[in-house]
Amino acid sequence: MKPYEYAILARRVRQINQELRQGVEKPYNEVIDVSWGDPHTAGLKPLSFVRQVLAACLYPQLVDSVKLPVDVRQRAQRLLGLCEGGSVGSYSAIRGIPEIVQRVAEFISRRDGGAPSYPENIYISPGSQWALSNIFNILVNSQGSSRTGVLTPVPCHVTSTLALTGLGAVMVPYYVSEEEGWQIQVEKLNQALESAKGVCNPVALYVINPGNPSGYVQSKKSIQKVIRFASEKRLFLLADEVYQDCVWGDQSEFVSYKRVLAEMGPPFSDTMELASFHSASKGFMGECGLRCGYVELVNVDPAVMKHLHQLFSKDSGAPVLGQIALDLMTNPPQPGDPSYPLYNEETQNIKSTLVHNVKRALEVLNSLPGFCSQPVEGGAFAFPRIHLPAKAIQKAKEVGMRPDTFYCSRLLEEAGLLVTPGCEYGQKEGTYHIRFCIMTPKVIMEEVLKRLTSFHTQFMKDFS
Amino acid sequence: MKPYEYAILARRVRQINQELRQGVEKPYNEVIDVSWGDPHTAGLKPLSFVRQVLAACLYPQLVDSVKLPVDVRQRAQRLLGLCEGGSVGSYSAIRGIPEIVQRVAEFISRRDGGAPSYPENIYISPGSQWALSNIFNILVNSQGSSRTGVLTPVPCHVTSTLALTGLGAVMVPYYVSEEEGWQIQVEKLNQALESAKGVCNPVALYVINPGNPSGYVQSKKSIQKVIRFASEKRLFLLADEVYQDCVWGDQSEFVSYKRVLAEMGPPFSDTMELASFHSASKGFMGECGLRCGYVELVNVDPAVMKHLHQLFSKDSGAPVLGQIALDLMTNPPQPGDPSYPLYNEETQNIKSTLVHNVKRALEVLNSLPGFCSQPVEGGAFAFPRIHLPAKAIQKAKEVGMRPDTFYCSRLLEEAGLLVTPGCEYGQKEGTYHIRFCIMTPKVIMEEVLKRLTSFHTQFMKDFS
Repeated sequence: MKPYEYAILARRVRQINQELRQGVEKPYNEVIDVSWGDPHTAGLKPLSFVRQVLAACLYPQLVDSVKLPVDVRQRAQRLLGLCEGGSVGSYSAIRGIPEIVQRVAEFISRRDGGAPSYPENIYISPGSQWALSNIFNILVNSQGSSRTGVLTPVPCHVTSTLALTGLGAVMVPYYVSEEEGWQIQVEKLNQALESAKGVCNPVALYVINPGNPSGYVQSKKSIQKVIRFASEKRLFLLADEVYQDCVWGDQSEFVSYKRVLAEMGPPFSDTMELASFHSASKGFMGECGLRCGYVELVNVDPAVMKHLHQLFSKDSGAPVLGQIALDLMTNPPQPGDPSYPLYNEETQNIKSTLVHNVKRALEVLNSLPGFCSQPVEGGAFAFPRIHLPAKAIQKAKEVGMRPDTFYCSRLLEEAGLLVTPGCEYGQKEGTYHIRFCIMTPKVIMEEVLKRLTSFHTQFMKDFS
Repeated sequence: MKPYEYAILARRVRQINQELRQGVEKPYNEVIDVSWGDPHTAGLKPLSFVRQVLAACLYPQLVDSVKLPVDVRQRAQRLLGLCEGGSVGSYSAIRGIPEIVQRVAEFISRRDGGAPSYPENIYISPGSQWALSNIFNILVNSQGSSRTGVLTPVPCHVTSTLALTGLGAVMVPYYVSEEEGWQIQVEKLNQALESAKGVCNPVALYVINPGNPSGYVQSKKSIQKVIRFASEKRLFLLADEVYQDCVWGDQSEFVSYKRVLAEMGPPFSDTMELASFHSASKGFMGECGLRCGYVELVNVDPAVMKHLHQLFSKDSGAPVLGQIALDLMTNPPQPGDPSYPLYNEETQNIKSTLVHNVKRALEVLNSLPGFCSQPVEGGAFAFPRIHLPAKAIQKAKEVGMRPDTFYCSRLLEEAGLLVTPGCEYGQKEGTYHIRFCIMTPKVIMEEVLKRLTSFHTQFMKDFS
């Protein structure tokens, strides 16, 4: 995988916007950027309840002078009471503000049908990727001279693979099968393990559920199989579950690895090493800019936990406002609370918008000749396959680009639409994809699909 | 250095507070914690201007309904305009929001008498320590099989040494001389370099100015000497300058390494590799909980810069509210702005409080038999030496504690005051110290000194 092809496109967006401001004529007024999994960038609005509590914690005086729902004031007061010196400007404990960590543990246990969750196994961190990096770090450093391998899905979002390779570890790719709706198959995991022989020592298996960039949602059965495989091969399981609230398929349901592990009972439930990640950036709240997530560790050796604690210690904890957002995400307003009606309305609006967007995107994509998209069961992205004409592939070679980057580059120039090429994530040799975020207002999704349709039709004509 | 002796004390604070709540009689009502360099924890108030702008950015609706100074509204509006999708909940660019990075560069250039500063050399990060870790990472990984060494002051605050050793690097200690007001001496740097022979390959020199835990402020002359030494020995210079606003001595002035380097001219100014760190956590703003700082890199090899960019890429940028705080810190209200009078009053109050605290702390400390403190020219801490009686040292051995931890433990139990033992930071063999934060309201500083005096008098009597 050659990273940063996307970076070149992103840089070009800034140039185009400058050209537009300078009056250069283009068939669009502004670039639409749906390359990120970032709801606010894509135009969704923050949740009022979340922002009210955060603003009240930052500047309590302001709150006294305006009308805010009583539960917002109470929540802010309680949360400020948990901050040292009553200020969100104070450092917090290494694993996070203890009472918030406790409430995250209670959330996990409720989510997982009562399976116990212990605060001492949880670390709140500046983003879930940051916690993942720390665990990669432990896995890499605990090895001797042989290089550490981590089984990693292909396709896979870039931040994780960057973190891995940045530490000198080897990414051992396992392909998820597009034809099977991007499901993880144990056969492919076995193949990956075989491929690592003589190259590195695989110690962990990284899974993303719901998927990113491909929007699968794993069934309980599929998770059981993966757990059995990881257990048999003695692999540490890393479960990236940051899109757990984003499930769109009627038949799909998010089930956590932790829950399945608990339900499988011994020996799995008391031996399988698992790290599960969640984040305040994803889901309906979408507060990426606050930089906060958590990891829960299960069955991890006490000596490793101690070393991990040292790693988490060196950065003085997660942003306090992010921790507060995590408290609100895991403990939202309940029916009967003054904030509940508005909170419920806003989250339901977002949810119905996103379900609608996914439906519309699939309708349009699968009606375009040359496009083919698997169902988007969950997550924030459509990841359709494009069958590029031979002439387009030839042209891409001539200009020194990968074929799907060439497609995305033309899409950006001609239609003012920024999406990411599949080569950024890894894909089966000879297949091409694009990824775009479906977390936008409806009107923007329609404009995205309109620009894509019109560009694609012309592109296929030009290169047929 | 054995870390975490302090952690045991901190844990004990929570137990004591619980005992107090349960009605256990103690000679104090609550524990005073001056072990952190955290102004809000220690009781100082956030700056109104900063909190107003941050709250306005988080929840613009709230701001419309209350009276806020017009420059606060304008500033919030301008800053929100720089955020993707107009929300602080969006991701930002890897090195930070470009316009804020630009303004940080302008601040540096103003501060350094016009020496140029380039945005492409600056990274905003979730705390300055985080940026420091990334640079340590590069230094460690760019070495082959021999272990990487970094010359590190003794005493030195713990987060940096943890980050270093966590990466498998070797801390090469150089002692700063207490008798010379904790000044850095080239002779000691040379000794340190000698001591590393056959142990590791020293590639960098880490300096802290103003100091932490010891409160020296380096003169321009001293900085010149250190730069010459680092240049001659081909060491990468890491300058931790997070306390640059905190200078208390009449005769002292903060001068940045960058400025001195620029003024020295070639060959130093165009070859010496330098990283300089600053933070929104320190100084009068004291917003530790927002987690934001920056590093400026000078003369760093483009290949290294590229690798560094990858490291900074893997964590999706710094918290946006922290970046905004950094913008406010580097571009505070100016005379004539509606917010200026209050801003000026608040910062001047804090400054005069801290100057007063330092003066009072030194008066009291140096009047106590067995205590001796060098002047506190800058930074957030007093770091006096204690001459412990032989009987106290003997008793400490019996209970399995280091002597100054034993002292701090008794101080906590008997007087309800948490300070940090010098052994946490490293100190010359056979010397003992305590560190406490001077960034408190005056009334708390008086109570700290009262508790310390009364405890110390009894302690010396008990062990004489």
